[in-house]
Amino acid sequence: MEALDLQVNGFLFGAVKSGIRGKDRLDLALIYCTVPATAAAVFTTSQVKAAPVLLGMERIKSGLVQAVLVNSGIANACTGEEGMAKARGAAASAALALGISEELVQVSSTGVIGQQLDMSCFDHLPWLVSGLGPELAMDVARAIMTTDTVPKTAIRTLTINGRPVKIIGMTKGAGMIQPNMATMLAYVMTDAAVSSATLQTILPNSVNQSFNRITVDGDTSTNDTVLLLASGKAGNDLIDDPNSTEAKLLQEAVNELTRDLALQIVADGEGATKLVTIKVEGASSDREAELAARTVANSPLVKTAFFGQDANWGRIIAALGRSGIDFDQTSVDIAFDDAQIVGNGLWLGAAAEKAASEVLHQKSFTVTISLRQGMGSCSIYTCDLSIDYVKINADYRS
Amino acid sequence: MEALDLQVNGFLFGAVKSGIRGKDRLDLALIYCTVPATAAAVFTTSQVKAAPVLLGMERIKSGLVQAVLVNSGIANACTGEEGMAKARGAAASAALALGISEELVQVSSTGVIGQQLDMSCFDHLPWLVSGLGPELAMDVARAIMTTDTVPKTAIRTLTINGRPVKIIGMTKGAGMIQPNMATMLAYVMTDAAVSSATLQTILPNSVNQSFNRITVDGDTSTNDTVLLLASGKAGNDLIDDPNSTEAKLLQEAVNELTRDLALQIVADGEGATKLVTIKVEGASSDREAELAARTVANSPLVKTAFFGQDANWGRIIAALGRSGIDFDQTSVDIAFDDAQIVGNGLWLGAAAEKAASEVLHQKSFTVTISLRQGMGSCSIYTCDLSIDYVKINADYRS
Repeated sequence: MEALDLQVNGFLFGAVKSGIRGKDRLDLALIYCTVPATAAAVFTTSQVKAAPVLLGMERIKSGLVQAVLVNSGIANACTGEEGMAKARGAAASAALALGISEELVQVSSTGVIGQQLDMSCFDHLPWLVSGLGPELAMDVARAIMTTDTVPKTAIRTLTINGRPVKIIGMTKGAGMIQPNMATMLAYVMTDAAVSSATLQTILPNSVNQSFNRITVDGDTSTNDTVLLLASGKAGNDLIDDPNSTEAKLLQEAVNELTRDLALQIVADGEGATKLVTIKVEGASSDREAELAARTVANSPLVKTAFFGQDANWGRIIAALGRSGIDFDQTSVDIAFDDAQIVGNGLWLGAAAEKAASEVLHQKSFTVTISLRQGMGSCSIYTCDLSIDYVKINADYRS
Repeated sequence: MEALDLQVNGFLFGAVKSGIRGKDRLDLALIYCTVPATAAAVFTTSQVKAAPVLLGMERIKSGLVQAVLVNSGIANACTGEEGMAKARGAAASAALALGISEELVQVSSTGVIGQQLDMSCFDHLPWLVSGLGPELAMDVARAIMTTDTVPKTAIRTLTINGRPVKIIGMTKGAGMIQPNMATMLAYVMTDAAVSSATLQTILPNSVNQSFNRITVDGDTSTNDTVLLLASGKAGNDLIDDPNSTEAKLLQEAVNELTRDLALQIVADGEGATKLVTIKVEGASSDREAELAARTVANSPLVKTAFFGQDANWGRIIAALGRSGIDFDQTSVDIAFDDAQIVGNGLWLGAAAEKAASEVLHQKSFTVTISLRQGMGSCSIYTCDLSIDYVKINADYRS
């Protein structure tokens, strides 16, 4: 993707090396809208919420955001009142440098839990503001990375009322990733004219079918934040009804973009060598399908077998067995892509095993589990559990 | 422990290399009681139950067991009607060789899921029977090992009605270990005279505070079985009331022995270098304490930090946050053994960190998490997640 395409009307971007992560890493980023953008947000469901999340939850109620200040390196979580004061102080500094109301500033942090921010990093704010540009979104995508190995961005275009509308997004997150939005930050910007209320319908829908369907290690973070901002610069008629055709067009495009970003996170999961879709069909309900898919997707034994390129269906069926869902083991079919290896709960033999084993050697594949109990289905996106996952997490205080 | 001590009146043991696992490994074992033993059993809670488990659940209803035939290498799980016929056939062959009723034979299998047993391994049964001896329990402990690196046995003695009573036990299990009795087999034999009904009270109590309190990787198996057999040879008055003083003495001794065995499993967890107790106190209820302790004990990020000897309390508090329990993050204290590192949800500074870090360098330690919400408490025993765990499970079809 060309960095030049990663632009959208009304938004300026920038990032600097503020010193939080040493001299050589971008670690402080700013997203700025030239007008107050309509906005929606989804935050972590963890009982333990970082200071910027608590602040953001309060401020998003207005439905308006004009700037987002993000730092990596320090999570500002479990930092008490001092941490809250620092989150507020950071927002106030950004507001001052930008000449806007501090109520319009969202703050995000990602990194080590429990350490206090050294506020001197925000001395770089005037410089950061003076360097803002429409073409620098990729710098933001880089500045928010922690154990990510690549920046993650996506672009979608659509037409609403005959006007071209654009959506761009960026995300980070490689470990502590599971449902409900783990160590995951994502920012989605569009030039569509949309009311905050409509965005507040669109965003949770899109998060549920994207970021909430991925898992790297079953862990959830204290800092997860997804923000959706709309500048209104596309010139379409204001989309104010979540049930309108225009809102649905936008919903679909945001869904595609967030799923794209979410899959980039799994593919870049800490130490991951495989991107695997766990698809459960024929469960008694969607909820049971989700429970089964998540149990399989998070099983360390299943994930190490993926790493070993072993079509170890016994571990999959064992994970199903303990998932808590109701099913009949003699009605279970399992396939790796098109290669079915289990029929009616039984192994289909050496030829089937060989075909399945070839699928496992791909970088990406789907495990389809059919239970023949009902109509419930769910897909969860996961990765393998590799030696590098352990190395990364045994070495890195994140 | 001296192998000669691993004896108990009324029981004979033996194991052979039957060929399931190649020529050089003990893989078929027999436990025999010279009289029908009173017995109780606890089996896997998985929806997917291996053939020998299904057979065992049926047969244990009589409360009597005279022989237990165990093979390693093949789990005989997900093997359909052919697998059931083979489990029955194995029991019938053992009964014939021993000259007892086949209804008194329990069968256990552990190993690869989904493959059929080659019945020729049971041709070794007459030889196995002829070689039975009271001093060969250690051979059984070795024959049931899969990825275990050491055999696991325990002995307790006590006095009931002035008579010496002995209990011995053996267990296996190194991966796929989580609550509810994962890839875990355990056999406990005593010479006490006890009714089956009393054993059926004693065994679940002891399993709940031992095997159901350990976790290696959160996975549960299709084959888990714990059997408790009593020969009655100690000559005490029959213990027939689960509420009697004698039953309570026996309960206490069985509890100690099963906890001993369970901790041996965790310490020998696949790739484990640390044995860690996660102790949650002050939760709203015991159930919430258990949920919190299990979430921390199974978090890959927490477990890799243990492997890295990193006192990474941020990952512990993040796991608490997603555990689903209700608590106030400003009331959380965390300590590694006696070294408190978090007070009221906040880091206690570099000196505290250094002390905690020293604890992490031990082979074994306790993480105490105090929530100050109520009186609920629970301890879960876990191990670290190491590079070797991944290597073992990426390479081994188990």
